[in-house]
Amino acid sequence: MMSGMTTPAFQRARSAQAKQAREEAILDAARTLGHQRGIRDVTLTDIAAAVGMHKSALLRYFETREQIFLRLTAEGWRQWSAELRGALGGRAHATATEVAETIAATLAARPMFCDLLAQAPMNLERNVSIESVRTFKLVTLEEIELIGGELRRLLGLTEPQTVDLVATATSLAGALWQMATPGPRLRELYETDPRLGHAIVEVEPRLRRVLTAFLAGVGTESATTPSGDPA
Amino acid sequence: MMSGMTTPAFQRARSAQAKQAREEAILDAARTLGHQRGIRDVTLTDIAAAVGMHKSALLRYFETREQIFLRLTAEGWRQWSAELRGALGGRAHATATEVAETIAATLAARPMFCDLLAQAPMNLERNVSIESVRTFKLVTLEEIELIGGELRRLLGLTEPQTVDLVATATSLAGALWQMATPGPRLRELYETDPRLGHAIVEVEPRLRRVLTAFLAGVGTESATTPSGDPA
Repeated sequence: MMSGMTTPAFQRARSAQAKQAREEAILDAARTLGHQRGIRDVTLTDIAAAVGMHKSALLRYFETREQIFLRLTAEGWRQWSAELRGALGGRAHATATEVAETIAATLAARPMFCDLLAQAPMNLERNVSIESVRTFKLVTLEEIELIGGELRRLLGLTEPQTVDLVATATSLAGALWQMATPGPRLRELYETDPRLGHAIVEVEPRLRRVLTAFLAGVGTESATTPSGDPA
Repeated sequence: MMSGMTTPAFQRARSAQAKQAREEAILDAARTLGHQRGIRDVTLTDIAAAVGMHKSALLRYFETREQIFLRLTAEGWRQWSAELRGALGGRAHATATEVAETIAATLAARPMFCDLLAQAPMNLERNVSIESVRTFKLVTLEEIELIGGELRRLLGLTEPQTVDLVATATSLAGALWQMATPGPRLRELYETDPRLGHAIVEVEPRLRRVLTAFLAGVGTESATTPSGDPA
C-alpha cells in the first residue's frame, strides 16, 4: 500500500484534492464578499484579490464570475431546503399558516440566498456554460421535489401546487429582497419622504401574508369553487 | 400675437418643444430596442446610434441609460394600470378568479414591462439620481392606489390587501418573465433534457393560478381562520 502512494494515481488524487481546496477557497471568498456587499457589487477581480490569486489563475477553476455565484445559489437551495424540511419534517401536522410562516422565516433568514434567487435567472444562468446551467437546474428541481414531499404530506397539496408554491416563495423572496435592500441612499429617501411610506418593503411579513393567503386559497379551491368575493 | 413669436418667451417655448421632441425620440428608440433584444442587451451607445445622436449629446437629455429605462417603466405602469382599470371598471361585479385572470392576462401581454419590473429595483433605481427615483416611485404608488380602488370596489379587499396583491402580481410577473425568457440556448436545453421539464416557466398560467389562490385565500381569511388544511 505504501509504495502505491507514489504512483500516478496518488499524484492525481493529491492534485484533485488540491484543486478542490482551491475551489473551496474561491467559493469562501465569494460568499464572504457577497454577504458584505451584495452580489451585484462583487467582481471577479475582487474575488481573486480576496483569495490571493491572479484572475487568470482563478479562471482555471471557474468559467466566469457568474459560475461562482451559480454554485453558491445551488448551495443556498440545498441549505434552505434542508432547514425547511428539518423544520417541517419533525411535525405530524401543520396548518397552512404555520407552513407559510416557516417558509417565509427560513427564506428571510438567508439574505444572500434571496439576492442570488433574483440574480440567477436574470444574470447568472446567462453567463455560464450549458452544462453549468443543467447541473444547477437539476439541483433546484431535486430540492423542489423534496420540499414538495413535505408539503403533500402536511397539507395534501398536489404536485403542481407544490411547484407553484415553491416557485412563488423563491421568486417573491428574490424580488422583495431587491426592493427591501435599495442601498442606504434610497432607503433614506423612502424613510424621509412621507409620500413614499408605501415604497418601504419588508421581505418576511409580506412573504408570510402572501403565502398564507395562497395556501388558504389552494385549500378552499379543492373543496369549493374559488370565488372569494366577500363584497 | 405674431410679433410676440420672436420674443425670448417664444424662443424658450420652441426650445422646450424641441427638447421634448428629442426626449421622445430617445424614448422611442429605447422602447424599440428593448422590445427587440430585452432590456439587458441595450446600451446607451445602441440608443444613441438608433436616434442618430452622439452619446455625449444624448446625456444632455437623460442622466444615464437607467434613467431612460426607468422612464419607460413609469410609462409601463401608467399604461398597464389604465388597461387593467379599463377592463375592471366597466364591471358591476367580478369574481376573484376573473380579477386574477385579468391581472395575469394584462401583465403577460406586456413582455417589456415585465422585463422592466424586474430590472427596476435591481438595476435601474440604483443608477439614477434621487429625484428620478422619487418621481418614479410616486408614479407607481399613484397607480397602485388607483388599481386598489377597483379591487376594493369589486372584491371588498382592504387597502393593505390591495397593496400586497399588486406588489405580488408585479414582482412575480417580473421574476417569472426572467425565467420564461432565458434566451434560445437555454430554452433549447430545457426543452431537450427530459429531466428539466419543470424548469420551463410560462408567465400567464402560473401568475393566474397564484393570484387566484391568493384572492380566494384572502377572501376566506376575512370570514374564517386561514387553516386550509385539507389533509
